[in-house]
Amino acid sequence: MKKIGFIGVGIMGKSMIRNLMKAGYEVAVYNRTKSKTDDIVSEGAIWRDTVKECVADRDVVITIVGYPKDVEEVYFGENGIIANAPKGAYVIDMTTSSPRLAARIYEEAKKAGLKSLDAPVTGGDTGAREGTLSILVGGDKEDYDACLPIFEAMGKNINYEGKAGNGQHTKLCNQIAIAGAISGVCEALAYGKAVGLDLQTMYDSISTGAAGGAQMNMAIPRILKGDLNPGFFIKHFIKDTRLAEEESQAVDLDLGVLEYVLGMYKKLEAEGLGNLGTQALIEYYK
Amino acid sequence: MKKIGFIGVGIMGKSMIRNLMKAGYEVAVYNRTKSKTDDIVSEGAIWRDTVKECVADRDVVITIVGYPKDVEEVYFGENGIIANAPKGAYVIDMTTSSPRLAARIYEEAKKAGLKSLDAPVTGGDTGAREGTLSILVGGDKEDYDACLPIFEAMGKNINYEGKAGNGQHTKLCNQIAIAGAISGVCEALAYGKAVGLDLQTMYDSISTGAAGGAQMNMAIPRILKGDLNPGFFIKHFIKDTRLAEEESQAVDLDLGVLEYVLGMYKKLEAEGLGNLGTQALIEYYK
Repeated sequence: MKKIGFIGVGIMGKSMIRNLMKAGYEVAVYNRTKSKTDDIVSEGAIWRDTVKECVADRDVVITIVGYPKDVEEVYFGENGIIANAPKGAYVIDMTTSSPRLAARIYEEAKKAGLKSLDAPVTGGDTGAREGTLSILVGGDKEDYDACLPIFEAMGKNINYEGKAGNGQHTKLCNQIAIAGAISGVCEALAYGKAVGLDLQTMYDSISTGAAGGAQMNMAIPRILKGDLNPGFFIKHFIKDTRLAEEESQAVDLDLGVLEYVLGMYKKLEAEGLGNLGTQALIEYYK
Repeated sequence: MKKIGFIGVGIMGKSMIRNLMKAGYEVAVYNRTKSKTDDIVSEGAIWRDTVKECVADRDVVITIVGYPKDVEEVYFGENGIIANAPKGAYVIDMTTSSPRLAARIYEEAKKAGLKSLDAPVTGGDTGAREGTLSILVGGDKEDYDACLPIFEAMGKNINYEGKAGNGQHTKLCNQIAIAGAISGVCEALAYGKAVGLDLQTMYDSISTGAAGGAQMNMAIPRILKGDLNPGFFIKHFIKDTRLAEEESQAVDLDLGVLEYVLGMYKKLEAEGLGNLGTQALIEYYK
């Protein structure tokens, strides 16, 4: 279990690869845009030209790509992971993606003699860099146990959430809670501004109490500095909350606040703001 | 500045009076229901039969009652605080109430030779008991400075928010942020339950990251124990969020999430759940 194939070398992936190499793993990498792997390859990762080559001789394959369609593309088909990973290998999708897709990968992987886990993360670029990600894992418990040392190289709060897809479901719980929290924060700030409060003092006053939380501490200081740059992209949050909307509808659950917040973000995206950070929800109230 | 009149001896008021006495203040008390003051009187507070008598010889008058109409009742009229407090006294309303009412009290108090502050609190019964309330103060800065030792006897994070009414406006910011946060938490939990997650593990997984916050830590553990008892009553949260709705409409600001959450709580209140705690929002999703 020392040879890892890693597909998806974005901001998150790059830091995760560094932490895996630091822990002694040999990491082969593939990315759609090769140039993004230059630094990581100079640090010891092995470049592979295709997904197929990247997984062929590996004990474990990790993916963290963009959208569910990207996940489908790298897992399925004759050049995909499932057709080309060696029998007995573990395949771990760490993309925030569809729980149903995770369950489908699990089934297809099983048929091919592979072991599959869905393991999306929270903690952002900072968590990836510092190796303090929370990792939410679905699949078979014995496979989770077997891969735990790998997860421990990348994260801190690592939990087994149950069957295939449950890692993704748990991540969607996270995004649902964030949707409420960030909208409450932005509405509070919009209100404070409209009635003429000193917003820094307002923040100092309420952030330590019952209204306090990670979203408030992320968003208000940035907004007050005029910084709407992405810690987390609006376009990605829309992807995640759309998944949550679809999944909740599939179980006949109406999540009104989530849908309301998704509607606001879609409006901002339509106005060309999808590449801003989620704190740019404040723009909705202007 | 050692003689305080205190009107409103509920759960919050009682603890605040104890902390004032502990700090060496002489506290005269009045409450609509006298029996609720028995213990505090046995501990050294002075019972007064009317508002008028409770304020007549006091340096400072503190009120923490239920609704804005209760605030009006104790401040205005020939038997009220403004007509009966001695010239030069400070009158401090710590009820969560209307910013416009606070501004009106400030004006009327000024005409009567009194100094008025609005100083609602956050931190709940625990904060009141332990003297760790956050106190949000509006009014004249010199009056805030003069009363700071009194606030320090009851709280920790004490801030001057600006002119009369701004303490209330800041408290409404707090409640607006809470509305978003608690709804996100309850939707995440409802979703997790609907898709069959182990909810304790879900909570352990997401509460340490970007979705984490005081409302999540308040609500999920209680809900998982089946405890819907009030830390904070739904009926009081409806009062507060209604105030926020009115005030935001007055400045032409549309707070869609707040209104959505208020609508959910009103539905629960109509079903007879107004005396449950705010975490009972989870019942909306059943």
